[in-house]
Amino acid sequence: MSESYSLDEVAAFLNAELRGDPLTQISGLNTLQNAGSGELAFLANEKYASQLANSTAEAVILSARHIPNIDNYSGALLILDNPYLGYAQISKWFDPAPQAPAGVHPSAIVDVSARIGANVSIGANVVVDADAVIADNCCLAPGCYIGSRSQLGEGSRISANVSIYHDVSIGSGAVIHSGAVIGADGFGFAPDGAGSWQKIYQIGGVVIGDNVEIGACTTIDRGALGDTRIGNGVIIDNHVQIAHNVVVGDNSAMAAYSGIAGSSTLGRNCILAGDACLVGHIDVCDNVQVMARSLVTKSIEKPGSYSSGATPLMETREWRKNAVRITQLDSIARRLKTLENNNN
Amino acid sequence: MSESYSLDEVAAFLNAELRGDPLTQISGLNTLQNAGSGELAFLANEKYASQLANSTAEAVILSARHIPNIDNYSGALLILDNPYLGYAQISKWFDPAPQAPAGVHPSAIVDVSARIGANVSIGANVVVDADAVIADNCCLAPGCYIGSRSQLGEGSRISANVSIYHDVSIGSGAVIHSGAVIGADGFGFAPDGAGSWQKIYQIGGVVIGDNVEIGACTTIDRGALGDTRIGNGVIIDNHVQIAHNVVVGDNSAMAAYSGIAGSSTLGRNCILAGDACLVGHIDVCDNVQVMARSLVTKSIEKPGSYSSGATPLMETREWRKNAVRITQLDSIARRLKTLENNNN
Amino acid sequence: MSESYSLDEVAAFLNAELRGDPLTQISGLNTLQNAGSGELAFLANEKYASQLANSTAEAVILSARHIPNIDNYSGALLILDNPYLGYAQISKWFDPAPQAPAGVHPSAIVDVSARIGANVSIGANVVVDADAVIADNCCLAPGCYIGSRSQLGEGSRISANVSIYHDVSIGSGAVIHSGAVIGADGFGFAPDGAGSWQKIYQIGGVVIGDNVEIGACTTIDRGALGDTRIGNGVIIDNHVQIAHNVVVGDNSAMAAYSGIAGSSTLGRNCILAGDACLVGHIDVCDNVQVMARSLVTKSIEKPGSYSSGATPLMETREWRKNAVRITQLDSIARRLKTLENNNN
Repeated sequence: MSESYSLDEVAAFLNAELRGDPLTQISGLNTLQNAGSGELAFLANEKYASQLANSTAEAVILSARHIPNIDNYSGALLILDNPYLGYAQISKWFDPAPQAPAGVHPSAIVDVSARIGANVSIGANVVVDADAVIADNCCLAPGCYIGSRSQLGEGSRISANVSIYHDVSIGSGAVIHSGAVIGADGFGFAPDGAGSWQKIYQIGGVVIGDNVEIGACTTIDRGALGDTRIGNGVIIDNHVQIAHNVVVGDNSAMAAYSGIAGSSTLGRNCILAGDACLVGHIDVCDNVQVMARSLVTKSIEKPGSYSSGATPLMETREWRKNAVRITQLDSIARRLKTLENNNN
Repeated sequence: MSESYSLDEVAAFLNAELRGDPLTQISGLNTLQNAGSGELAFLANEKYASQLANSTAEAVILSARHIPNIDNYSGALLILDNPYLGYAQISKWFDPAPQAPAGVHPSAIVDVSARIGANVSIGANVVVDADAVIADNCCLAPGCYIGSRSQLGEGSRISANVSIYHDVSIGSGAVIHSGAVIGADGFGFAPDGAGSWQKIYQIGGVVIGDNVEIGACTTIDRGALGDTRIGNGVIIDNHVQIAHNVVVGDNSAMAAYSGIAGSSTLGRNCILAGDACLVGHIDVCDNVQVMARSLVTKSIEKPGSYSSGATPLMETREWRKNAVRITQLDSIARRLKTLENNNN
Repeated sequence: MSESYSLDEVAAFLNAELRGDPLTQISGLNTLQNAGSGELAFLANEKYASQLANSTAEAVILSARHIPNIDNYSGALLILDNPYLGYAQISKWFDPAPQAPAGVHPSAIVDVSARIGANVSIGANVVVDADAVIADNCCLAPGCYIGSRSQLGEGSRISANVSIYHDVSIGSGAVIHSGAVIGADGFGFAPDGAGSWQKIYQIGGVVIGDNVEIGACTTIDRGALGDTRIGNGVIIDNHVQIAHNVVVGDNSAMAAYSGIAGSSTLGRNCILAGDACLVGHIDVCDNVQVMARSLVTKSIEKPGSYSSGATPLMETREWRKNAVRITQLDSIARRLKTLENNNN
């Protein structure tokens, strides 16, 4: 499916030192354990260093410190300071994802007022509404919807059945996966004093920077007043929720099920692990990591790693015996204090 | 994008006392901090009262008790008992969401047996199956699917790429966001005695009341036998899961990631905060609030606020030291009891 | 909507002992409490045994041990060892879901290189890309997308607006609900050493076995290298996340919001309850149950039931008082130890 490349080409692209025949052809990428003839592997994790000795990979990307592990391995070496980054960089060469042809599919419905750049691919049944702007080299897979006045930056790739509402601005190089929804109404309602809810129309938009990846079934709501804002280089996994008027700083990462409630801000270079969530109206500074399943209930002003959620796994019988004691924790603490006082 | 309105019109609509020139034109809504010429702001939260003094808003909705905060502010006043509700009510006037034209887009596929009301807008690539009923003034955005015999009440608005299965009944005034799925099979399987699962066909439907809002990527499953039921005025955020045969009472609110497992009932005027979930086969009475990330594992018979989930945020090192002690809680409680007995 | 069947036919299909008129016609299925004339009910749960006495069902599936509960009930009996399984098996007969006609809807866009089997139904606006294979008796509802080279096994049913990327292989008898996304990129990025993320192209695929059900808005990501793999007979609820290179064993069940992070494996015949998640790079053996909201942070090598998440529900005031003590747990344990030492 993919083409083949000489080791020479690969080494030049990665700026790696090559030990082996520069003309050897590489036609695929695989793990150290599974790579065979014509395949390139990499060694980036100490845990797998012992797999090198018996690897049948045609070539391996590794760092100089792993050369002593070579042992029986007789393939070529591509020596780099950061083999994991090298693997990441070369991975695109072996991506079998088909490239859709440029042009507008006859079944697509593109409003006459929309502006479509050069070399754009608009797939079957895509709908592009009035005054939308699709920049050069974008690719929209079948069934996507782009609302009025929304903009998609240069080279963005939108997978099938993505929904983008009106007045959403997305920078260049975006990758947006199927089922993602950008610009739906934020969850804003005022109690009407008679037991019902009065909808607050969400009149802001969404502004997303360059080189942002957005996972499948992820939602980014439009602002109530003013915009929801995602910085440059932000990476977002599946099933993420970003509420109205949230701000996410450049290069932050949000794993699956992580979420940010309304009007909170996440700094730059932060990492929210799986299911890590922020409540609304708080601010988390740059360079914060929040561990899996943690709930951030207050602002964080100091970089570092924070947790609240992941209690230890036990057999259910043990868990129940211990968990019920959580209902007694305040009493336990008070009684302990009393005992301590009595003992002094 | 939106039109402009005189302060006179705004005050009359809100039934507010106007202090200022009734002919002043308002063309937008903004926050107290950001509102400028021609823009209306509101003051509803004590926290922002100090922003009033230097606001450059053309007019501000506020309550009489904030008049002393005016200070340098020289714009108009709209005085109301409930400024937040006033803001909510007027927000629709400034909503820039484009209104789709009435009519059936030529690419839409509407079964001949479906009944389509007056002034309905059916967007590109919408599919409406046999015997479906779309009442007057509904608007279906591109790519929606409406299954056989399903009904959509008057004035409902369905965003792009919503999926509604067969035999789903939705009341008037619904707002349903992209990626929502209503009427998918409940998760019902019987162990077949040989290690596999026998599917239980889900032959019930879904019945949704009037004025319900349903967020993006939210799922409401059809009943196994009988219907899943959502009351009037219920508001549901993104990524919510409502399982088969659940009943949700009127005017309850469910925030993002909240969920209700099979056959449970949630009362009226309840609030499930983010990620608050109910296990199956329990009943929660009216006027209950469940705090973020809590798991309701038993029925609740008394109105009030309940919690189980949000443990305090700590630095990860501190968290780990404390969390491991949860495995010792039962032992700690017993040892404390022993000490107390020994000290008596 | 559904047809009617004689009790004779029902008994023969279920291999049940029939007490009653074999010619009685059954036209529907309902609960013991609600079933009326012409309707079949079942008694599978001790909790509902008392409802039998006054049931107006035309016939009831039950086990011999419940015959003493009959009391006033005068309808027919279908006696079976496993009434719940019997109900599950017969449920298909009464499923009102409309069957789409075989054939390719004129609005569907099927690449000329795709292979479409016999008796296949391809709905409106479905898109099937190059070299895809749709086996006999499959049914694809409107708006689905099937990527290049992907395969769908015999008799699979795909609901509206499902997105299946390229190089995804799905076995026979699959049921996939709306909004599900299969084959989106795994969440793989390498830090580039300059504060940004380098995307790792996800060049593996997804391989799904036979008779798998996949819920609405569930995501199964493609592998980074090699495939993500789902066994035979696996059942997956809504909003589930299965990350790249995960392996799920045969007949395992995953309830709503459960998830498995990258490269972890779940054994056969496991059950993940709602919101039960596995972190990445761990292995869970066969026959493990993980309770609701638990986070599995390490490999499990012994079958059984495991928990970590569901802390007890309390009134919020009580919860807060106790939860804050979690921050003192390590101190409490140490102080208790000191007291114990002093008392010896």
